[in-house]
Amino acid sequence: MSAPAPAVPALDFVFHPRSIAIAGVSSKEGPGFGGGGFVQSLLEIGFRGPIYLIHPTAPAIRGIKCYPRLTDIPDSVDYVISSVPARAVPGLLEDCIVKGVRVLHLFTAGFTETGDAERAKMEQAVVARAREVGIRLIGPNCMGLYAPKSRLAMMQGQSPEAGPVGMVSQSGMNAGEFVRYSAPRGIRCSKVISFGNGADLKAADFLDYLTDDAETEIIMAYLEGIQDGPRLARAIRRAGKTKPVAILKSGRTESGSRAASSHTASLAGAIKVFDGLCRQAGVLRVESLEELVDVAVAFRYIKKLNGPNVVVVGGGGGASVLAADDLDAAGLKLPPILPETQELLAKVTHEAGTSIRNPIDTTSLWDENSFEATFRPIMAAPNTDVILHHTSFGGGGGGSRGGDPRYRLPRQADTLGKLQEEFGKPIVIAIRPSTTGDGFEHGAYFQELCAERGIATFPSIVRAGNAMARLLEWQRLQGG
Amino acid sequence: MSAPAPAVPALDFVFHPRSIAIAGVSSKEGPGFGGGGFVQSLLEIGFRGPIYLIHPTAPAIRGIKCYPRLTDIPDSVDYVISSVPARAVPGLLEDCIVKGVRVLHLFTAGFTETGDAERAKMEQAVVARAREVGIRLIGPNCMGLYAPKSRLAMMQGQSPEAGPVGMVSQSGMNAGEFVRYSAPRGIRCSKVISFGNGADLKAADFLDYLTDDAETEIIMAYLEGIQDGPRLARAIRRAGKTKPVAILKSGRTESGSRAASSHTASLAGAIKVFDGLCRQAGVLRVESLEELVDVAVAFRYIKKLNGPNVVVVGGGGGASVLAADDLDAAGLKLPPILPETQELLAKVTHEAGTSIRNPIDTTSLWDENSFEATFRPIMAAPNTDVILHHTSFGGGGGGSRGGDPRYRLPRQADTLGKLQEEFGKPIVIAIRPSTTGDGFEHGAYFQELCAERGIATFPSIVRAGNAMARLLEWQRLQGG
Repeated sequence: MSAPAPAVPALDFVFHPRSIAIAGVSSKEGPGFGGGGFVQSLLEIGFRGPIYLIHPTAPAIRGIKCYPRLTDIPDSVDYVISSVPARAVPGLLEDCIVKGVRVLHLFTAGFTETGDAERAKMEQAVVARAREVGIRLIGPNCMGLYAPKSRLAMMQGQSPEAGPVGMVSQSGMNAGEFVRYSAPRGIRCSKVISFGNGADLKAADFLDYLTDDAETEIIMAYLEGIQDGPRLARAIRRAGKTKPVAILKSGRTESGSRAASSHTASLAGAIKVFDGLCRQAGVLRVESLEELVDVAVAFRYIKKLNGPNVVVVGGGGGASVLAADDLDAAGLKLPPILPETQELLAKVTHEAGTSIRNPIDTTSLWDENSFEATFRPIMAAPNTDVILHHTSFGGGGGGSRGGDPRYRLPRQADTLGKLQEEFGKPIVIAIRPSTTGDGFEHGAYFQELCAERGIATFPSIVRAGNAMARLLEWQRLQGG
Repeated sequence: MSAPAPAVPALDFVFHPRSIAIAGVSSKEGPGFGGGGFVQSLLEIGFRGPIYLIHPTAPAIRGIKCYPRLTDIPDSVDYVISSVPARAVPGLLEDCIVKGVRVLHLFTAGFTETGDAERAKMEQAVVARAREVGIRLIGPNCMGLYAPKSRLAMMQGQSPEAGPVGMVSQSGMNAGEFVRYSAPRGIRCSKVISFGNGADLKAADFLDYLTDDAETEIIMAYLEGIQDGPRLARAIRRAGKTKPVAILKSGRTESGSRAASSHTASLAGAIKVFDGLCRQAGVLRVESLEELVDVAVAFRYIKKLNGPNVVVVGGGGGASVLAADDLDAAGLKLPPILPETQELLAKVTHEAGTSIRNPIDTTSLWDENSFEATFRPIMAAPNTDVILHHTSFGGGGGGSRGGDPRYRLPRQADTLGKLQEEFGKPIVIAIRPSTTGDGFEHGAYFQELCAERGIATFPSIVRAGNAMARLLEWQRLQGG
């Protein structure tokens, strides 16, 4: 008998600092991230504890009092962010020991990833010393944590609103882009971790943590290297058994592998072996950051498909034909519209330029009175597993027709949300990208309305189709 | 010996009407395209001749005088747009004969594409009668022409500015989307033709026309069906020998093929046969509308690659690693940075978090003083065939740093344009999509600045890489 998962995972303290000190904040900030960037991010998201700055000479920076050394801070500090040069890290670590710090996040780069043997040795020495005294390290060479409930942010613009998606990322930029691109599509995060070189805490540690974390329902990961293969494999298998998981593994080509090595000192490993591990673990391996975001949206909002039968609904014959090709190529099916469904649809669709075959290319969506009457019989049809509705804003497409979007779009989203709930099958929206500022704003608004109503949105028909196909694949891997 | 190409192609009159009559403009416009849409588009683009409206009872619509019948118009009319129901088309054609009309554009749908034998017969009868009297038909079931020099537009928002890209499309929507998506990236058109069912004038006719048209340097096509296979093959071969050509052929899957049949009554034909024809003809076959736009940008602005060696330049380690994977997978190469180039770069790149390997992940791009100094040695390096610079706007990436974009971006675009010209090799820009309105506007502004300076822009690294790989493939097909 295995022990039950602990109520609070062992690493939980890492995500709940009561106070933070930042070492290496310049009194004159240049371009780029840096200590000052973390001050800004923490202030913006509203970190609830005290923030202390460490600076050898400045009395205050950005209005926050500075101390010459960590040990000069009169109160207790349990989390330190280091933006000092690599050679200053051993000294800072000694101060952390004196101060009783529990977590040291090393934004500081310039260790193993430089390819320099001396610097690799320095990294090993820092890890050895930290382990000796029980201080956990995040990094080096990373952006650290975004944990909205704890009001921790690694970058500006990260929402204080929490949600069920956890993410582990070897790259801070990819963690940031995941958050940035998924947010407008309704994805909110529990904990996002950028861990860089992973000298102490590694992907496996954070995957284990997210597997046990009650606030995390879905797990996403971006990995460059394989550290401690057998342990990582165990963590991936346990995660895949417990929650929906998708992993973007870079370094899948020779050039990518070389780039990963100079970015986070990662040994990329054979992608085929990794792929086999993922399949066996019931975990999706994705090919791009876009796909990682799309799969997160699929896990979160499509949730489950009863089968591969998609009915495509939208204005525009050419787009419909291409949609049929794209969806078929992705492995989905476009079932014929049943006679009884056709009969109901015939009552609302205009004649010219429309077709009540699948894809359904109809202008009846542009008329408020027939919007619901077009979707309802398709949702009710027994051979519909999912509706894919495509639209666009700002010229050319149907989305910009039919009256003021501020009034029309909330009603459309209400209708779609209501039907999705009523029939217990998903509606998926593809909002083709806009080329105008107004169109962009309307598209973003519709996206937000859909997310609020639990509806999945994608930026193209191809990407929507691919996400549905990947969800079906995941269901198969899970034996469903 | 073959005859020389005529100075003015035979179909030139089709694109140069002196006056237009529109039949079937409703006095009370509902949603959707229609006769009224064409009035609006022609007024907006500034058609220079008179526009006449035909309506049985209304004295005027949108301020333009109406005539009960075409034959009631006192002046000569050489181009008629029909938006009347299908059953009224034969009568309208008789009036066209009386009036001496040369071209009848049938926006009217409801013919062969319905799958109804009676309606297919009606289409054949209309074609037979038109041929008898020498009237050429565009359509039925299509949007007709966009020809900026002649001030003809098929949709609103189409620019009066002309350029070297011609397009033939079986779908009006896809023609419109091609124009809409390519315009912000600097693509301007000579002639764009949506020909629907192609009952009289077909893809082959329009391809032949664009091949001979002096204003067209690059040819794009969207085809659903194969009409008169041997003639189409001849037209494709002649076009491919004369100008850069890319074709998007839909109906490549079973579902797509069925959709094509109900959209424009097209028999899709085997994609493998079509693919072979394209390769033999030195024509690129593309898989999506996005790729069609990207290849147009590559033909127009990248023009020629001397080899597959890409140096990737941009801020962000994670993005760089993924870029390396994507470009390698597309068949491109990421050459190492030569020692002499590294030496020059070391003078301008900051230490932490950067790498002067390829991809070059450097924050020196954020500093105005080192922007040119970063690009120049890379352009000068003998092992660089092309630079791919990636950036983003509105959070997370480097593009939003380094001062007010209204001043910074024009200077950056100037520098890039100057270097591209000076070294005679292309610089390609990937502007990753924004998630904020401000970021969207800045990205769109930078895109426009780049286009004005002859620089190719793409919305992602993957799409930029794919377009370069397709350009190299085209060069190989052309024997180059």
